[in-house]
Amino acid sequence: MITALDHIAIAVPDFDQAIKRFMEDFGLPFDGTEDVPDAKTSTAFFPLPPTQIELVHPLNGEGPIAGYLEKRGGGLHHLCFRSDNIFEDVERLKAKGYRFLSDAPSPGAHGSQVIFIHPKSCDGVLIEINQPGDEH
Amino acid sequence: MITALDHIAIAVPDFDQAIKRFMEDFGLPFDGTEDVPDAKTSTAFFPLPPTQIELVHPLNGEGPIAGYLEKRGGGLHHLCFRSDNIFEDVERLKAKGYRFLSDAPSPGAHGSQVIFIHPKSCDGVLIEINQPGDEH
Repeated sequence: MITALDHIAIAVPDFDQAIKRFMEDFGLPFDGTEDVPDAKTSTAFFPLPPTQIELVHPLNGEGPIAGYLEKRGGGLHHLCFRSDNIFEDVERLKAKGYRFLSDAPSPGAHGSQVIFIHPKSCDGVLIEINQPGDEH
Repeated sequence: MITALDHIAIAVPDFDQAIKRFMEDFGLPFDGTEDVPDAKTSTAFFPLPPTQIELVHPLNGEGPIAGYLEKRGGGLHHLCFRSDNIFEDVERLKAKGYRFLSDAPSPGAHGSQVIFIHPKSCDGVLIEINQPGDEH
């Protein structure tokens, strides 16, 4: 089942400027950045427990965020719900008719499993589901 | 200063269907709906303390959410940061060059004051700032 709103991701065209904006202008706590080469994404973390704002930016100008920025110029990119049993949740939602961007969850950072619901199945909202790994 | 992520608003084309989706399919806690005639909006509340997911839908088919749905069909609409002194925050952000959708905060629900930063000032993200009223 879904247990929490894990994070809200915002696609930003200028990574450093956006980090400065959320840190200095909005005064949010900043917890560093991480490059995820598999997702071709750099991420900056602003923890607001129990959720988190994440700024996402293309790593080396490639990948899905690059396409989004080219089309939209930036904006609210996706929500992520945390699951305590992602395989069960995916089966349950598939049975209700939800489409996903991949057939099954795939390994994410820190031993997690992640999958995205197709935005057409959720009124235009891209929703990620993740299940943290044991090392989380 | 900004003290919290107050809520995340999602514009939905079918209010009842979306409420059912977030309640039954995603299993989020549902805390009822409220019509805000001044904003021409119906809102459904899903508290995830200390933040909240809000589904927003046009009241009587009019207003800003109707325009958004016509253009986009639905999606992540805005983030709202809570302030402990909205007038001071607006002055501070104006001095940094931020543009707002109105000259000054205006009264919202429950005695609150609200204002929106222009999305062009924040990489395409619509950001609301609110300060709860004493009755909050």
